[in-house]
Formats: sequence, C-alpha cells, structure tokens
Amino acid sequence: MKKLLATTALMISMQAAQAWEALPEKAPAPADNPVTTAKVELGKTLYFDPRLSVNGTQSCNSCHNVMAGGDDNRAFSQGATGKLGGRSAPTVWNAAFQSVQFWDGRAESLEAQAAGPITNPVEMGMPSAKAAEDRLKQIPGYKALFKQAFGTEEITMDLITKAIASYERTLITPNSPYDRFVKGDKQALTAEQQAGMKLFEAVGCASCHSGANFSGPTMAPGQGFYMSFPVFKDNAYVEKYDLMKDKGREEATGKPEDAHKYRVPTLRNIALTAPYFHNGSVKNLDEAVRVMAKTQLNKDLTEEQVQKISAFLEGLTGEFPEQTLPRLPGTHGTTLLAP
Amino acid sequence: MKKLLATTALMISMQAAQAWEALPEKAPAPADNPVTTAKVELGKTLYFDPRLSVNGTQSCNSCHNVMAGGDDNRAFSQGATGKLGGRSAPTVWNAAFQSVQFWDGRAESLEAQAAGPITNPVEMGMPSAKAAEDRLKQIPGYKALFKQAFGTEEITMDLITKAIASYERTLITPNSPYDRFVKGDKQALTAEQQAGMKLFEAVGCASCHSGANFSGPTMAPGQGFYMSFPVFKDNAYVEKYDLMKDKGREEATGKPEDAHKYRVPTLRNIALTAPYFHNGSVKNLDEAVRVMAKTQLNKDLTEEQVQKISAFLEGLTGEFPEQTLPRLPGTHGTTLLAP
Repeated sequence: MKKLLATTALMISMQAAQAWEALPEKAPAPADNPVTTAKVELGKTLYFDPRLSVNGTQSCNSCHNVMAGGDDNRAFSQGATGKLGGRSAPTVWNAAFQSVQFWDGRAESLEAQAAGPITNPVEMGMPSAKAAEDRLKQIPGYKALFKQAFGTEEITMDLITKAIASYERTLITPNSPYDRFVKGDKQALTAEQQAGMKLFEAVGCASCHSGANFSGPTMAPGQGFYMSFPVFKDNAYVEKYDLMKDKGREEATGKPEDAHKYRVPTLRNIALTAPYFHNGSVKNLDEAVRVMAKTQLNKDLTEEQVQKISAFLEGLTGEFPEQTLPRLPGTHGTTLLAP
Repeated sequence: MKKLLATTALMISMQAAQAWEALPEKAPAPADNPVTTAKVELGKTLYFDPRLSVNGTQSCNSCHNVMAGGDDNRAFSQGATGKLGGRSAPTVWNAAFQSVQFWDGRAESLEAQAAGPITNPVEMGMPSAKAAEDRLKQIPGYKALFKQAFGTEEITMDLITKAIASYERTLITPNSPYDRFVKGDKQALTAEQQAGMKLFEAVGCASCHSGANFSGPTMAPGQGFYMSFPVFKDNAYVEKYDLMKDKGREEATGKPEDAHKYRVPTLRNIALTAPYFHNGSVKNLDEAVRVMAKTQLNKDLTEEQVQKISAFLEGLTGEFPEQTLPRLPGTHGTTLLAP
C-alpha cells in the first residue's frame, strides 16, 4: 500500500512535471479554414474596421486591443452606443489556443465568436448579419481583399468571421520568461518567480490552469474545459465581489447543472489584463490570486505566497509580434455612416 | 488701361500656374520642438492610448483614424461617454501643413490642438490636464519613453502634446496622382481629372484652396487663412444644410466680424473624409462641390463640371506611409480604469 501510494505520488509528480509546456508557435486551425497570408491580412483589416459597428465608432480592437493586453482593462466594455456589456472582455491574445470562446464557452470556435459582438446590441450593435455584410459590400476595396483571401468577391458573415479568426490565430505571444525558463534558460525567471511557480503547482492553481495556455488540458475544438466559480462559497469574497450574481454557463445553456461554470481562462499576459474575473470585480492581480485560492481551493495564502505567485504570473507576459497598421479601404467621396 | 488689365491678367495667370505645388516631404516644426525619432515613437504611442480618455474607451485615433482618411467619417464625433461633438472631426493627415488647427483656428499649433480633445467633456473627457498627467505617471513604461524623447522622466501636458504633435508631423501623404502629375508624370491624372483641374482653377475653387495643401497660402505659424462660409446666402443649400447655425470663428473669439469664418481646410484625401463641411451635413463629394460653387462663388455648375472637379479631387488621395502598431506600456497587475 505504501509502495502504491509512493508510485501514485511519483506519477502525479511526473504528470505535473510534464505539464510545464512552452507556448506553441502556431495555433490550430479548422480543416475548412486554414490560415493563409491573404486571409490574415483581410482579417486584420476587418478587425480594425469601425464600420463593422452600427455607428462607425468601434472595431473589434476597441475592446480587444492588440496594442495592449488584448482587452480594454475595464470591468465591462462600453459598446458603440454607450451601453455596457455584462462580462469583462477576454483577451484576444492566444485565444486561438482555447477550444471554446466567451466566458461561458458558448462559441465553439473563433469563427463563431467573431460573429457575436458585431450584432450584439450592447457591443458593435449592427442590426443583423446581413446589415454587416451590406455595409462591407458598399466599400469597393473589400471586394479585392475577399477575392484574394477566398477566391470570391462575395462578402458573407461566414467569410468575414473566417478572415477575422485567421488573423486571431496569428495573435500568439511566445517567449515569455516562463517559456524561456521551461526551454532551459534557468535565468529567465527570478528566484521569486521560480518559488511562485512551485507554489502555483503545490497550492493547486495548476490543476485547472494547466497546459501550454494555462487554460486547462487540450480539448477537442468546441469542447470546453469548464469549472465552477466559486467552488467554496462560505467566505467574504463571494459577497464582496458579487460572484454569485452571474449564472455563468447556465445563462447560455439554460441547464441548472451549468450554473456558475466558466471556461477556464488563460493566464498568459494576465499581468496586462486587469481587472480580473468574468465581472472585472477585482482590480489587482494580488487580490485575484487571494480570491482564487480561497474560492477554488479553500486556502488562505500568506502574503509571501501571494507575492510569489503574482511574480510568477508576471513571468507569463510574452513577446508581442510586431504588426503593421492596416489600411482601411475607403468609400470614395461618400460615407456609410450618418448622416 | 487695356494693357494694364492684360498685364494683370497675365500675372494672375502666372501666379495660378505657379500655385500647383506638390506636397513637401517634410512638415515644418517649431524651433522648440524639433521632430526626433524618439518623440515620434512616444507620440504615436500616446496617440493610440485610450487611457488618455476618462474611461479608457477612446484614443486620438478613435476620431482621427490614421488607418483611414484621418477622421471618422461621421458628421459629429462621439466622445468617450457617448456625447456628440459640435463639429465634424478634421483629418489629421497633413494637418502639419496647416498654420492653425480646428475648424475655427483656435489652436495656433499642433501642440496646442492636441491638448484640446483630452480634456474636452464631449471628447476624451479627462477632468483636467493634471488628471491626464497623473494617469500616465501611473504607467511605468512611459517614464523611459519620455526620458528617451525629452531627457526627463517628468510627464507634463506640455511634453505629452509635443510628442503627439511630433508624430502628427510625420503624417504626410505624398505622391498622390496630382503630385505625380505636377512633378511631370502627365499620365498620373486622367483626361477627366485634368479637365477637372482646369475647372478647379477657372471656377475659382483655387482662390481659397491654393498651395501645396489646398488650404490656402503659406501663413506664419499661428496665423490662420480664414474665409466666410457661406459667402452667398441667397440659395437653398444654406437652409438645407443648416449652414448659418454655427457661428464659426466667432464662437472662439467672440468677435462679430469673425461670424461664419472658418480656416480653409485641406482638400488632400478629401475623397476619404466624407461627410463634408464643419457640420458634416453633406454626405457626398459631388454635392459638396455643388454647394461650395454656389455658396462661395455664386456659380451653378453643370453636372459635367461637378463630375470633372470631383474626379480631380479624387486625384488628391496620397500614399499613406506604412506604420507599425505601437505597444502600449502596461500597468502590471492592475488597471487605471474602473472599478
């Protein structure tokens, strides 16, 4: 029995050791939408085009800012007409490594996700997918871009989202201090960060935030890795940060068993994406670590432990690929926006 | 007398012939703010940083979009909290060639202009210049950028606007078909455009829209080239497009003699900056040409003339320099925005 326990402990230890993975340099893509240079270029142009919002004030980048941590650093994003969304904008960086999209995983792919905000009345606010297609059809330059990307001048929401998803599959941040550390550069993480890394595993953070993207094990596309939040409800944080108000995945599926379940989010670049959690209720990373330890693992961390884990998480900030600004095709002597 | 008239006519003709200038490749800069690479880089970063707005939703680029024609293609811009501005956003492209800024010329330099929207309650909405400075002081990465640009880690509105102005001085669009034409490439403009160019002069457009920037003669910095709009009020356009509502420069100076006066705006890239006029009341370039001919010169153009002049104006669309996306410095585990 003792030997069996020891063996099990060794196996767990080995599994954990194998779990420290560097970020792949390429993201997976569905068979019907391989990444091509032309699609990425079109997708980037669309990603930055505010004419995909009802009044021309917002692009995808407005809330998922690739010049920063891939979000907007707000609790709830403000939509094109000033309305607030109901959850904090997730980062677009490395989203390509998540098997489902949105906090509740209701989109099974980046393609499915991209269609959401365009017609969401509290986001970009287009009245319909057709309205978005019609808007782009009135911009002459897009015809050539769609032709190059898809071999057709036809502009459909299916192709719009395929192009945006292709661009997003290039939004990868490799070579973080953590990545360099696991690849062998033992100086890449400070002693404090290395201690934090051990704590991250010992405390139990890594049981959910595992894998190369720190968002759980690799799942089949469309299959989400969901966890309850909060698991332990008998603590002051739950009320303080209003953690029970949002029903999580239940709001998407209508199933009571999905109540308060969320897709495990990535921790990559987490130091850049405050405030934290689905409701953006926690302003600082230190506090987010405290809250997670208590609500998910029922552990009260010491301040020293919190600092070390936070320091480790800072080490997950990667290198952001240099990009050129896209040129948005014009409308030659007219505007598609009011008046 | 006849001879004198003929001589005068010849002189005017010669002046007009000399007036077809290509766009310079460099913009003038004030003696106390020479353009440097470090200032341009800092300025670009600030230009794209939405944290210069009260709620983090808008950057300079939101309304003066350098991925497009340098404006937002809206009649009135929408500010950070959803309020509408009172005039249409002017283009930032080639603004460095204007001797004064804003429709009413109330800013005597790009530096003075840049401070305006940041604290304007209907634009970026920061409560004060100090609030903007304090916001940036909390972003660690800016210290090094200011140090490189200005030799000091101090962050002041004076330096913020100097950096933004330096970036804007690089926003020049040379080599339009028009520029190539006047430099000797006689194929650069179509026959229709060349006919439009002659009409542009013959009809009288060029008497105000002169010079390399099509915004009037070169003036000393801070000295504006102002014209009344409308000059001729006895036509249907004045009411149709509500041209008397805005008091123009009088609203800035309080002087009745400045009523309905405006800085003559550039026509470069005009095909990309619809809708037209200070109030964005005219959606199409053709109509803008008709209205200008009638209200400024009391001329009724034929449709053929309108088409030719519009075609010429399309030839003022220049080449936009390729730019890299800036990286916005982060705030390491916290947010400066709500909550």
